Amino acid sequence: MLRQFIIFMALLTGAAASHVANDANATEPPLSEATEACLECHSGATPNIVANWRKSRMAQTTPALAMQKDSLVRRISAEKVPEELLNVTVGCAECHTLNPDKHPGTYEHGEYQVHTVVSSADCSTCHPVEKQQYNKNLMAHAYGNLVKNPLNMDFANQVNGSLKYEAGRLVHALPSPETESDSCLHCHGTNMKALGDLEIENEDYGSVVVKKLSGWPNTGVGRINPDGSMGACTACHPRHIFDIETARKPSTCSQCHKGPDVPVYKIYQVSKHGSIYDARGKGWDFGKVPWIVGQDFEAPTCATCHVSLLTDPEGNVRVQRSHQMVNRIWKRIFGLPYAAPMPNSPDTSIIVNKDGLNMPTAWDGTPAEKYLIGAEEQGTRKAEMRQVCTSCHGSQWADSQLRRLDDVIKVTNQITLASTDILLKSWQSGLAKGPGKKDSPFNEDIERMWVKSWLFYSNSIRLSTAMMGADYGVFDNGRFWLTHILYKMAEKVRTESRQK
Amino acid sequence: MLRQFIIFMALLTGAAASHVANDANATEPPLSEATEACLECHSGATPNIVANWRKSRMAQTTPALAMQKDSLVRRISAEKVPEELLNVTVGCAECHTLNPDKHPGTYEHGEYQVHTVVSSADCSTCHPVEKQQYNKNLMAHAYGNLVKNPLNMDFANQVNGSLKYEAGRLVHALPSPETESDSCLHCHGTNMKALGDLEIENEDYGSVVVKKLSGWPNTGVGRINPDGSMGACTACHPRHIFDIETARKPSTCSQCHKGPDVPVYKIYQVSKHGSIYDARGKGWDFGKVPWIVGQDFEAPTCATCHVSLLTDPEGNVRVQRSHQMVNRIWKRIFGLPYAAPMPNSPDTSIIVNKDGLNMPTAWDGTPAEKYLIGAEEQGTRKAEMRQVCTSCHGSQWADSQLRRLDDVIKVTNQITLASTDILLKSWQSGLAKGPGKKDSPFNEDIERMWVKSWLFYSNSIRLSTAMMGADYGVFDNGRFWLTHILYKMAEKVRTESRQK
Amino acid sequence: MLRQFIIFMALLTGAAASHVANDANATEPPLSEATEACLECHSGATPNIVANWRKSRMAQTTPALAMQKDSLVRRISAEKVPEELLNVTVGCAECHTLNPDKHPGTYEHGEYQVHTVVSSADCSTCHPVEKQQYNKNLMAHAYGNLVKNPLNMDFANQVNGSLKYEAGRLVHALPSPETESDSCLHCHGTNMKALGDLEIENEDYGSVVVKKLSGWPNTGVGRINPDGSMGACTACHPRHIFDIETARKPSTCSQCHKGPDVPVYKIYQVSKHGSIYDARGKGWDFGKVPWIVGQDFEAPTCATCHVSLLTDPEGNVRVQRSHQMVNRIWKRIFGLPYAAPMPNSPDTSIIVNKDGLNMPTAWDGTPAEKYLIGAEEQGTRKAEMRQVCTSCHGSQWADSQLRRLDDVIKVTNQITLASTDILLKSWQSGLAKGPGKKDSPFNEDIERMWVKSWLFYSNSIRLSTAMMGADYGVFDNGRFWLTHILYKMAEKVRTESRQK
Repeated sequence: MLRQFIIFMALLTGAAASHVANDANATEPPLSEATEACLECHSGATPNIVANWRKSRMAQTTPALAMQKDSLVRRISAEKVPEELLNVTVGCAECHTLNPDKHPGTYEHGEYQVHTVVSSADCSTCHPVEKQQYNKNLMAHAYGNLVKNPLNMDFANQVNGSLKYEAGRLVHALPSPETESDSCLHCHGTNMKALGDLEIENEDYGSVVVKKLSGWPNTGVGRINPDGSMGACTACHPRHIFDIETARKPSTCSQCHKGPDVPVYKIYQVSKHGSIYDARGKGWDFGKVPWIVGQDFEAPTCATCHVSLLTDPEGNVRVQRSHQMVNRIWKRIFGLPYAAPMPNSPDTSIIVNKDGLNMPTAWDGTPAEKYLIGAEEQGTRKAEMRQVCTSCHGSQWADSQLRRLDDVIKVTNQITLASTDILLKSWQSGLAKGPGKKDSPFNEDIERMWVKSWLFYSNSIRLSTAMMGADYGVFDNGRFWLTHILYKMAEKVRTESRQK
Repeated sequence: MLRQFIIFMALLTGAAASHVANDANATEPPLSEATEACLECHSGATPNIVANWRKSRMAQTTPALAMQKDSLVRRISAEKVPEELLNVTVGCAECHTLNPDKHPGTYEHGEYQVHTVVSSADCSTCHPVEKQQYNKNLMAHAYGNLVKNPLNMDFANQVNGSLKYEAGRLVHALPSPETESDSCLHCHGTNMKALGDLEIENEDYGSVVVKKLSGWPNTGVGRINPDGSMGACTACHPRHIFDIETARKPSTCSQCHKGPDVPVYKIYQVSKHGSIYDARGKGWDFGKVPWIVGQDFEAPTCATCHVSLLTDPEGNVRVQRSHQMVNRIWKRIFGLPYAAPMPNSPDTSIIVNKDGLNMPTAWDGTPAEKYLIGAEEQGTRKAEMRQVCTSCHGSQWADSQLRRLDDVIKVTNQITLASTDILLKSWQSGLAKGPGKKDSPFNEDIERMWVKSWLFYSNSIRLSTAMMGADYGVFDNGRFWLTHILYKMAEKVRTESRQK
Repeated sequence: MLRQFIIFMALLTGAAASHVANDANATEPPLSEATEACLECHSGATPNIVANWRKSRMAQTTPALAMQKDSLVRRISAEKVPEELLNVTVGCAECHTLNPDKHPGTYEHGEYQVHTVVSSADCSTCHPVEKQQYNKNLMAHAYGNLVKNPLNMDFANQVNGSLKYEAGRLVHALPSPETESDSCLHCHGTNMKALGDLEIENEDYGSVVVKKLSGWPNTGVGRINPDGSMGACTACHPRHIFDIETARKPSTCSQCHKGPDVPVYKIYQVSKHGSIYDARGKGWDFGKVPWIVGQDFEAPTCATCHVSLLTDPEGNVRVQRSHQMVNRIWKRIFGLPYAAPMPNSPDTSIIVNKDGLNMPTAWDGTPAEKYLIGAEEQGTRKAEMRQVCTSCHGSQWADSQLRRLDDVIKVTNQITLASTDILLKSWQSGLAKGPGKKDSPFNEDIERMWVKSWLFYSNSIRLSTAMMGADYGVFDNGRFWLTHILYKMAEKVRTESRQK
């Protein structure tokens, strides 16, 4: 602790001193005239938006200054930034009046052509590499991967729709647009369209006319922006600080990755990684670029393993930053009945398996190989992840752990097959209706039990092994429940067959 | 970060300097003689109580000094405080010997007339506005709203009672007083009564005689104190620091608002608000009064939206502090089968609906309108909450979000109607007993499924929309489970009807 | 806050100053030659291991210096430490080359005889008291208590095994070793054995030959180390900082104590204790020895009540440190159908009840008294815990709370009896197979419902009372679910009996 105190004092004094020097020599990074105009009203109208932005890095530098940094510490990936943006801070107007012609949602506001929704295409003006990489993730395609896949959409509709009870039967109605925006599409992203004008009355500022937007508000990872670009950067770098610190903290990922269908945050919390983060993380430096293993942090967060540029204390790069998170993921272990290799293309709606469905595996688990990455690409990605593991663990540790993941995939896939066999028998023997009778496969008790067996339990077991949070995979949402629900399904079929 | 460091250093130096100055000029706020007597033994007997109190604001000022502050920063709401309390710190004796005649639990201790349980009436000596406002909340009436409503009490008894299995039937027994104190009444509050004397043997201090108390310990929000007053201020401002910081943190609310019946904390955690709080909250100032949007905090906690006085950085008030939390709540969206407007009176045991039950809606969802607030009052409260929203969000954002809440109330109410129709059919056809056969509506499988459909699932869906934590309302405790349990209920009725 | 600032500044300046003084006078604690050799490669090969160790107390002192401290502040319990370890930091080589002959996993690495897995026996070189105490806990015996008890192992196998669906029946297969390591044994500990040689290829360092280990990685509390010793100290003091701070934080315990079978962390979170920890804990000193009530912390964590040495601000000892956590636990309230007194011996596989099973209670709840602690020992342990309670609470508070625990044990044991009676009737009437028909008692729907009734619900109710997190024991995982599942079980037996 003494040692840490003195280092802290040194840093503090150094930092303060150098900042004083800066202040003496340098002028504050200049605001554009347009941004100054925005601030005039919005400091009072939406004070937190302005106050947050003032704390952001974007308010404290200019693209020109940011581009001068060495490649490892640089936070801007553009080689060239439009002249007019170079020497002012990235303020309100720089983003909200960028590319007005490309935004169907542009409206006149004050003297400016403004759009409400800043798109990932706007952000890529300064961060093109991140945008390009991000587009190669399933997450960027999360809207289409749900909406363009009839089976997925049927599931979403059965889950989110409304129900009436008439003549002893439940009658289903499709979900309202509000419900859709506030259920699956909250995370997957809405399809945002600029509609007509919208007049807003404000006591202090009078009447303002803006553009009405469908699917707004939304910060889903696969949001279709009004300009057609995919993804909301604010899903992980929230407005209006847009910081790397927040994106590196596991609570950010937990917004979409905490439920029983994809409980990675809950598993992280019962893992040794999560325990150390919880106990000691408050002393770590989440803002440093590059992120130095053991110095800036002592145990990984989600970002460490999946995204960040990591170096050792001597400055040697262990892994490169990549917003193409799939670079370190070789198997798809959640969201689907069977685990399978990752798809070739992030647009999974193009997959057709041997049963004719847009799923990477058939009812019996056979992978639709031509749409999935091969052994070599899987090896490359696994090696990249192993490079992260061995920053903190010996080789035998890492390899044994990875072998456990191979095993758990095999075992859970086999149990999914058993579960599916029970479902198929239930359909064949007429105990449930299913697609053979032109009914949804998601609206009867046994069908939902089948969904739980893989969507909740098998997935959780796999994830708990992948992330070393084993406790979650037994009693919390795993093996106890998986085997129980199979016993229940089998008994149900047996009993009902007898009664028939 | 550099900027933050220098501000931090400046604050640090400034703060330290001004404090030194204070120390030089001012004397420590004086303790009363009585409090000094308390401390003599209790520093050793219950060291943490004393140590915590020493850290409290009450130990560091006097009512007279506290009353000199300007209205916005003032933490004491009394216009007049009894002479003898004015110029000493608010110490042990000031609270525990206050109004001895009003406390049936008063006993002689040392040379003083002491009562163990400090009541909300005691606190209102200095904080009368807060007490008066708080009394208008359902929470203040949480004990009576449970105990005086026969339907609620039947539910509590069925949930908390004991069971034996005799001759193929479960035999129910009422819960013990200990179980009652430690289940529903833990949060709702116990009915505390002073009983006879209680002798306590202590190795170091010898025998001490105090008053025995029923329902103790308890810090429930609707606790009936021995002096008849309602509420335990320590529910949110825990002993013996009583700080505003703790009350403003979401973990405080989570003590009673985390379970599947009212999972607001879990929803907060998967909302963008909660994610930002988790990632950045450690740097916020939770002790500042007034609480400055964007400067003291960057995203809301429970208190921000429901209680706190908020100003913008220029000092303009956005919303006034109110311990009458219902001021910003227009619909009651949890704890009941159907969402409905808030009640006129916080005592909900007086409501009688068209079915003759003390519930704000009938079996078919019809609201008992005469007991509920009208459209105008709903509008006023909604506008007050919207004023909080627009501190950080544009008007269209806020309005669309509020519209989603309207929609989700409509949809979940409709599904509750379907669930209730299945239950009623089950009773009508004799598949379950229910109230028509003088049986409890809460002690059969289908009845509990019905309870889950609204108490857990519909409520969670509504809350997840209200708080923008959509993920929770789908797979965690929401739409997936709601539709599944309705399919299950309908199948059960169909199968059992066939077998009959 | 001002007061805290100035204290903080004083501490900061003092600490810095004294450290500078230290640095001027003292030399850095010396590394052994062997450790220097380790660091040469491993700083680059596994940077986080090295960086973490550098932050540890072990890297900043020597056993000789640590032994000079006064008894209350001492962190090393050995009276005598081997000569060659006395005057160097406890570095890589000091642990990983200790007692090479006792480690079947020793291999030649560089010029040294190295073993990968540092055992609790290795740690006891400097910490013998902790090791000796720890061995008397059930946790130290967690491997054998599971594996040597046929009933427990049958349960584990039914939960973790694989399933196929053949001819209308589920066919069970035993879990793979990987699954075993990654389910129950993750927390209970694996049985680690040194196997043959393992060659590891490394791009930067060439080929390295180490010893292959079964059950690796693992940090379970009852791990059987290759040298035969029990327990992984790293379960609570994680590598390579091994700090007391982490062990004192509740997230550490939550790694194994969070699921529905033993949800102590979740209960803590909704208790007042957990709420205060969450709201204010970031300002507490988790590293101080002894741990001063009210000064270093304001509300208890797991360690406070179960392990730590506590003093009051005057330095009077309230309770002694003990790694024999059972010293403050008198009843066993989770993991078993019925709550019962703690066992005499931490090896519970030796217990035989009146039904001939290795369980502390019979099917009807009768305790196997001869294997369980008597009333006097229970009283001693309860008094030790009460001594912790009264640091912060009055005697009546503590005693009433302890009485609630007595009551909840009685009530939940009675409901377990009802649940068991339903199960037995189910077996007797042939509705389920059970042990009478040589079948497992854990592989049918009603059997799993019975398991849930006690393993999840009764246990959670008891724990929620014990830890004053009542909310969890009602709707989250408690009374609502317990009574519901009993209604369901009773209905199932009634319906199926009728149909037979």
